[in-house]
Amino acid sequence: MMRRFLLLLAGSGWLRERVQRARFARRAVRRFMPGEEPEAALAAAEAFGREGIGTLFTRLGENVTDIAAADAVAEHYLAILGEIRARGIDGEISIKPTQLGLDVDEERCFDHLTRLAARAADVGGEVWIDMESSAYVDRTIGLFERARRAHPNVGICLQAYLRRTADDVQRLLPLGPSIRLVKGAYAEPASIAYRDRRAVDANYLALAVTMVEASRTGRVRLGLGTHDVRLIEQLAEHARAMGLSRSSFEVQMLYGIRVDQQRRLARAGFVVKDLIAYGDAWYPWYMRRLAERPANVLFALRQMLPF
Amino acid sequence: MMRRFLLLLAGSGWLRERVQRARFARRAVRRFMPGEEPEAALAAAEAFGREGIGTLFTRLGENVTDIAAADAVAEHYLAILGEIRARGIDGEISIKPTQLGLDVDEERCFDHLTRLAARAADVGGEVWIDMESSAYVDRTIGLFERARRAHPNVGICLQAYLRRTADDVQRLLPLGPSIRLVKGAYAEPASIAYRDRRAVDANYLALAVTMVEASRTGRVRLGLGTHDVRLIEQLAEHARAMGLSRSSFEVQMLYGIRVDQQRRLARAGFVVKDLIAYGDAWYPWYMRRLAERPANVLFALRQMLPF
Repeated sequence: MMRRFLLLLAGSGWLRERVQRARFARRAVRRFMPGEEPEAALAAAEAFGREGIGTLFTRLGENVTDIAAADAVAEHYLAILGEIRARGIDGEISIKPTQLGLDVDEERCFDHLTRLAARAADVGGEVWIDMESSAYVDRTIGLFERARRAHPNVGICLQAYLRRTADDVQRLLPLGPSIRLVKGAYAEPASIAYRDRRAVDANYLALAVTMVEASRTGRVRLGLGTHDVRLIEQLAEHARAMGLSRSSFEVQMLYGIRVDQQRRLARAGFVVKDLIAYGDAWYPWYMRRLAERPANVLFALRQMLPF
Repeated sequence: MMRRFLLLLAGSGWLRERVQRARFARRAVRRFMPGEEPEAALAAAEAFGREGIGTLFTRLGENVTDIAAADAVAEHYLAILGEIRARGIDGEISIKPTQLGLDVDEERCFDHLTRLAARAADVGGEVWIDMESSAYVDRTIGLFERARRAHPNVGICLQAYLRRTADDVQRLLPLGPSIRLVKGAYAEPASIAYRDRRAVDANYLALAVTMVEASRTGRVRLGLGTHDVRLIEQLAEHARAMGLSRSSFEVQMLYGIRVDQQRRLARAGFVVKDLIAYGDAWYPWYMRRLAERPANVLFALRQMLPF
């Protein structure tokens, strides 16, 4: 209920304009981002690096309707990759296809993606393609498959709440892919998505086990994009039973969420990446973060109090 | 809470004596067994057979403390295997190690098991070794591994709520085993067992996916000992994504529970087995069935009303 209500609010442009200007909201969102400016993200990444935690950078913004805006996003990420290299940061970037113009010009979006992949290869990292709502899954997988032909350092995000994801995993495994597995944060109909948490969790672990198992005989880089520490530890048990180490997969959590766990897992021998979002277009993203966990809503409400 | 209370009652000998004599209880338990006599089970199996549903026979009773009783149980199962053969029933047997004397004389228990396996081979079926509380897991797996050396038609039950089960699956997979996977019905401490339903479900699906995946390259006969139709369908999706059919695993449900689903799944191309329990020692078994599902308790309470 709460989740669907927040996801509804996430889609409101009217509310977005008002909330993004409100001081209490800017304060609340600070929990999930070190700052709107890229410099804040880079500084936070340097600090995480000293704790053995890598960073995925993502600039907020999606559904770009103007190709010049998409071009600017691509230039921005090229600059970020330059900073990652210059400062020696353990960093990669994560982009949204609609941020690179998928809605406007798919070819231009593809060109941006491959330029970014070529530059990321210089830094030795990957370009992660984020997954948006179900309407984009086919095209996003298509972009990934095309980009992979020339650029092995492109990864993709898959969502465990979608019923199709078991198929998508089997389709992509022969490519030796990098897959960031998330539970899924959009409002999707029951015909295509599991909506019960038990079903989503079960699917999540089953998909992760499938990929870890596949990594015994082929290349799979698996990133667990979840804050569900119990699922992470359940997967670690399955990996260990298969004779694999904790570093046979990665934990990729968001900035500001379960940071204590990120540090604990890094110290315990897990590969941990912190996904840092920045930029001024935080409203829909932030609402999806609130929708994921009731505890986040309580936190946000507390930030609204003036004392 | 309710679950642990019922499992506590399941262990009470005082209550067992009283309940087994009570008429309301005998009426309530009829939901889960066609009758105390083996003939009732055999007749029910013949009826299921006409619907394309196979049967696993299990005589209730566990923790035998007198070796003569264990000998009698073995003789009983030999007679049942004779009936299965004589009547052409699609049937197998499922035994509990402590019913064959594990607590009293492990060698005698092993001898009984191998005699039953030899006779079951004549019928073309397996002898399933059921799993009891965690104190028996090591010895039960030991019995299974020993028996398998001479008898390929011995299967074992593993419990998804136990943290060790991922290890046990990996240990047994090289044997090309038959594994009946259940969630687990005993009261076990959190140090060795998942107690949250989401964690148990996730582990269940992950273990099942591991075994279905292994069946692509080696022999694994997987029986899903669960009434959780959603998990069964989630596994079917994963199997299909791997290019396997619905008959790459079996559904094994208990007599009287979700019979509509047993029929529906059988018609939909799943291999379905109904596990029929019979005999007079139904009290602890029945209490564990009640503990599994709150709906079962309501049903039982309704049976106690005289109108």
